[in-house]
Amino acid sequence: MPSKPNPVLVEITRGKLVESQHRGAVVVCDAKGRVKLALGDIVSPVYPRSAFKMLQALPLVESGAADAFRLTPQELSLACASHSGEPFHVKAAASMLKKIGCKTDDLACGPHLPLGSKAAEAMLRARGTPTKLHNNCSGKHAGFLCCAVHAGASIKGYERVGHIVQKAARKAIGEMCGIAPASMPVGIDGCAAPNFAMPLKALATGFARLADPLRLSDGRQAAIARLMSAVTTHPLYESGTGREDAVVMADALPGTMTKVGAEGVMAAAIPALGLGVAVKVDDGAGRGAGTAMAALLVKLGALPARSKAAKAFVNVAVTNWRGDLCGVNRAGAALEAL
Amino acid sequence: MPSKPNPVLVEITRGKLVESQHRGAVVVCDAKGRVKLALGDIVSPVYPRSAFKMLQALPLVESGAADAFRLTPQELSLACASHSGEPFHVKAAASMLKKIGCKTDDLACGPHLPLGSKAAEAMLRARGTPTKLHNNCSGKHAGFLCCAVHAGASIKGYERVGHIVQKAARKAIGEMCGIAPASMPVGIDGCAAPNFAMPLKALATGFARLADPLRLSDGRQAAIARLMSAVTTHPLYESGTGREDAVVMADALPGTMTKVGAEGVMAAAIPALGLGVAVKVDDGAGRGAGTAMAALLVKLGALPARSKAAKAFVNVAVTNWRGDLCGVNRAGAALEAL
Repeated sequence: MPSKPNPVLVEITRGKLVESQHRGAVVVCDAKGRVKLALGDIVSPVYPRSAFKMLQALPLVESGAADAFRLTPQELSLACASHSGEPFHVKAAASMLKKIGCKTDDLACGPHLPLGSKAAEAMLRARGTPTKLHNNCSGKHAGFLCCAVHAGASIKGYERVGHIVQKAARKAIGEMCGIAPASMPVGIDGCAAPNFAMPLKALATGFARLADPLRLSDGRQAAIARLMSAVTTHPLYESGTGREDAVVMADALPGTMTKVGAEGVMAAAIPALGLGVAVKVDDGAGRGAGTAMAALLVKLGALPARSKAAKAFVNVAVTNWRGDLCGVNRAGAALEAL
Repeated sequence: MPSKPNPVLVEITRGKLVESQHRGAVVVCDAKGRVKLALGDIVSPVYPRSAFKMLQALPLVESGAADAFRLTPQELSLACASHSGEPFHVKAAASMLKKIGCKTDDLACGPHLPLGSKAAEAMLRARGTPTKLHNNCSGKHAGFLCCAVHAGASIKGYERVGHIVQKAARKAIGEMCGIAPASMPVGIDGCAAPNFAMPLKALATGFARLADPLRLSDGRQAAIARLMSAVTTHPLYESGTGREDAVVMADALPGTMTKVGAEGVMAAAIPALGLGVAVKVDDGAGRGAGTAMAALLVKLGALPARSKAAKAFVNVAVTNWRGDLCGVNRAGAALEAL
């Protein structure tokens, strides 16, 4: 957490008053880790949560596991996803498990209702029950299992911080973000996998290197190219119908990849600009991170101000249950002035 | 919004780090409006949202409407409720409408899935569709309609700020909170009724007068006694199964009434201490207001530290989808030091 209060990134109005506000930090870096734009504390450690799933997936490609099991681009996108639990997501996760001879119960993530509200409603109306495949992280976990099977390691305990699969992920994350892997504080994520805290500027640097990998090893460049292509060609597999990542990737500069994380985190890699972006809202609100990221992408010229995505996620209408306009969710003055 | 950053009321940990935090203000007042305890900005206007529903319901009793239509204590509790949309809530709202010859469609609030997650799941599994009766504010709106019918006024537009029903509510709120009704900024609430902003200490004062009404008129004292008795005898009608208000009222000092509001508001009236309490979390997070209020009630001696309610809402475990402990949602140092 910041040692002093971060600036207000986003405010929510009702009538003529600001009813609520979200403080936090934002940072834009290049692949050398140089800070191009910043607001707030970008050095205290924050958990990227699901925002860095593409970094966690690098060993899946680099180890040869993705090739060995003939993973499709859709499946690679799912390995980087916080998916909505729509039928096509569940099918892709099941396909990954089938390719490695694993079962749903081998996944270490717990079951939860689909993250997508329509998918959740459809499941309940059909009187269905969520399985581990519906967990928004099931693709990431299936990817971890692919790595374990490919390495000939035990699949039991693949989610533990000492397992070779997690060690490989931690190493790749540290290299990409420019920090010693062992120096990153460890937390348990919502899906039971370890998560590694780092300064927000390190997360932005890692994403800048996804956007501009030319100084990295050939193997890493190839893995990044494959994952970035998979996600940006199949953004719905990395996210879900109507959700910000999918909607923004459809309208942003070609090749742009964005990824939401729990507790108010969001990150973006913009190859056309060679930049990485990271946002953390102090209070953990997704509505804050979503608006801050969309406003930043517009400011950077990575998202057209008149695009459908900008209209959906910058200046978001706050309505009541019968649809009247009550207020707006918008970028605060400090973010606007960046 | 506060002119300078409010203190951290609540923090959410993961592993050894604080992952997210909630800033805000809290205040404890007596019935004369004297501040007994305070943290943060208690003078800038905030919308109480649903927290002040009992104040909005005062005219329902004072006008004689509640008597004329023989409203039961359960129905009066529902008039002060943000209910969970469980079957008994819906039945009570329908009963209120029947008593005044109104129909579900006369309610101005829009339909939404039950606020209670189990009630929502049950509705979807039964392939049901939410009606306006399921809106968490349907009891408040049915109460407004009772007032309109009793006054012989038009029921159409009863939710508009200029309607006599809303004027009466605004007058009662102003009197209780010690502010000129016309001076309160107006916003449209999630249920389409007007909401009136006020300093947080005014909200706490209004609740202190619910707790200690002896200096008020006989008619108001009688109305408060009736509503306080209705809610504290039937807390499930004012809230819902397992929700904080119902759970806290079951364990707190006899007669204590608490009420949640949207966007991080919570208020409490403690007759045994003659005090009112109000909390507003700047970022609007209910998890922040809930923990702050529970911690405050324990601090004030209004809730036993070893009660089921305190265990449920102070130091709340943060778990992942398979149930592992990942962190804790707890009061911050500033609140602990109060």
